Amino acid sequence: MGSLSFSIQRRVQKARLGRLTTDHSSFETPMFMPVGTRGTVKTLTMAQVKEIGAQIILGNTYHLMLRPGAELIDRAGGLHAFTGWDRSILTDSGGFQVFSLSTLRKMTENGVYFKSHIDGSSHFLGPKESVAIQRCLGADIAMCFDECPPSNAPRASIEEAVARTLRWADVCRHQPLKSHQSLFGIVQGGIIPEIRQYCAEQLLPLGFDGYALGGLAVGETPEEMYRTIEVTEPLLPQDKPRYLMGVGSPRNIFEAVLRGVDLFDCVLPSRNARGGTAYTWQGRIQIKSARYEEDFSPFDPDLDAFPSRLSKAYVRHLLHVNEITGMTLVTMQNLAFYLDFMRQLRESLRTDTLDAFRQKIDAIYPN
Amino acid sequence: MGSLSFSIQRRVQKARLGRLTTDHSSFETPMFMPVGTRGTVKTLTMAQVKEIGAQIILGNTYHLMLRPGAELIDRAGGLHAFTGWDRSILTDSGGFQVFSLSTLRKMTENGVYFKSHIDGSSHFLGPKESVAIQRCLGADIAMCFDECPPSNAPRASIEEAVARTLRWADVCRHQPLKSHQSLFGIVQGGIIPEIRQYCAEQLLPLGFDGYALGGLAVGETPEEMYRTIEVTEPLLPQDKPRYLMGVGSPRNIFEAVLRGVDLFDCVLPSRNARGGTAYTWQGRIQIKSARYEEDFSPFDPDLDAFPSRLSKAYVRHLLHVNEITGMTLVTMQNLAFYLDFMRQLRESLRTDTLDAFRQKIDAIYPN
Repeated sequence: MGSLSFSIQRRVQKARLGRLTTDHSSFETPMFMPVGTRGTVKTLTMAQVKEIGAQIILGNTYHLMLRPGAELIDRAGGLHAFTGWDRSILTDSGGFQVFSLSTLRKMTENGVYFKSHIDGSSHFLGPKESVAIQRCLGADIAMCFDECPPSNAPRASIEEAVARTLRWADVCRHQPLKSHQSLFGIVQGGIIPEIRQYCAEQLLPLGFDGYALGGLAVGETPEEMYRTIEVTEPLLPQDKPRYLMGVGSPRNIFEAVLRGVDLFDCVLPSRNARGGTAYTWQGRIQIKSARYEEDFSPFDPDLDAFPSRLSKAYVRHLLHVNEITGMTLVTMQNLAFYLDFMRQLRESLRTDTLDAFRQKIDAIYPN
Repeated sequence: MGSLSFSIQRRVQKARLGRLTTDHSSFETPMFMPVGTRGTVKTLTMAQVKEIGAQIILGNTYHLMLRPGAELIDRAGGLHAFTGWDRSILTDSGGFQVFSLSTLRKMTENGVYFKSHIDGSSHFLGPKESVAIQRCLGADIAMCFDECPPSNAPRASIEEAVARTLRWADVCRHQPLKSHQSLFGIVQGGIIPEIRQYCAEQLLPLGFDGYALGGLAVGETPEEMYRTIEVTEPLLPQDKPRYLMGVGSPRNIFEAVLRGVDLFDCVLPSRNARGGTAYTWQGRIQIKSARYEEDFSPFDPDLDAFPSRLSKAYVRHLLHVNEITGMTLVTMQNLAFYLDFMRQLRESLRTDTLDAFRQKIDAIYPN
């Protein structure tokens, strides 16, 4: 398969300090991937995404296939050339959005007929189509097309979804990708341990470059999510990266790293930023609150990033008067915080100071 | 008065290549000042404004006195400290917005009672109040509080406005400012030559650090504006900077520089950017147009700025799907273009190649 390489430098119980290398960048794991849905991280330029130190971002196949279209991006030379982002990219399969955003028309063995949430136009997406589109997008890491049943679906539905996800994984595995692209398989199975384990066992022989845990952070409790990671992790290959899709809060990420996960993506830091929720080394704060009206202290005195040095009162003013720049500054702060959080977490793995890091996180991100 | 210094390095007929120095930056003129209405240039961070090379930006007294309030900015250490912008700032007097945005309640000899356009709250702004507020804001250059009658006002109204503007200029001149602040006087008088000249003659003995032409670009034809500059300019001191307020298109600026103007500000490049109008060295283009859907050529191949190197198709896509980043990129492009336009104009004054520059502008910005 692709040119991705992954090595583990250090283990602390289940947690892993690793290094992942693609054709476009090489970085240590555990790592957080900012979400760049439609060819941009919302409110930021790619220069700003780079400035805050992101090494890999995520692109959404569902959104990009609808606008501007995968073929157009292919003609542009792929998502890297189209967006000007020259570090790593991972694209999801489109499955999650098809099941959550679009109007489903019909489910078949070969894929899903659906209507666009934008204009109602008809589309079809299955394992072949998803990989073909991701080939056009040209991300360093592509994902298998999977079925994502609701978290409260009955056991029979989850079993059926897993069976289909496994058949689709086999189809995906045999579709062509560009030489620099790698493919990750996805373990589904809700929060039912034996179904998760069955899915992982069946997926392994297909031989993917990495393994994702899908269908989590969709309504179950954090404890159910942690438990699901725990029962699945021992079945995953030690020498491949593990990616927990769509997770999560700093606490969620910390707990998942302790349970052996290497990669994360989540809209939380960027989406919440636009509503005024800021992640800082002093904890999560509502920067629009009147209490910051005259607070001229730095936005985040413990973070060395451009927005962190501005005053809370200034950022609060910009959001208060609905200046777009306010959303941009909080988005930068939040993603810079997430990346610094991962860096300090890696450092604690490297220097055997995980307990001290845990105490720090317990104090500011207890849940 | 303040610590502003201005020297003229070269004259080409009426046009002047100069250097203006404040406590915060030193730059060559003619210069364009991006508009930073409420403590930010819309859609940009101050880091981006700096990156595209701006040396001086404008802040709006009217907007800032309403939110977050002048006293708050004073307590923050002034507009420089509040916003993190460490180069020069000019603040307007608030007069233009009071007359154009707010609901006027009553005009008196001491100033204007008005209601905020945001919440209807009552305020009073006169020459004393305007300078006191600008003292709080602490910009390098403050402006006199003037009356701006509509461009189609009858002669008697314009004469009355000029008389009041002159009495107010005298009041402003005697209000305290901080030691680093300078004060510019404003010549009013509509497009009636003898009233403009009268205003300029009466203003001069008060001895300001610079002189602005106000009440232009408010509905008169470009020819009327150019003619008004021509009849006023000979009366202004040669050794002080001249500032044409609220102007304008690249063509307007070029023509005004030929007539002896040194400083400009205008919302055109930033406001039009948000609607998808881009200023480039290939002319003005509507980047949202379908013709750019698959145009992978650089946004502006003749400009060396971050957004200029991205493809037209990418910028078009972002605007098409309503990503805020699209507005940010066009705003950066437009302001980078305006600043490069001024740089090339200065270069043509320095190297006696004004005719070649005029031909270039005639081809891409004929009007």
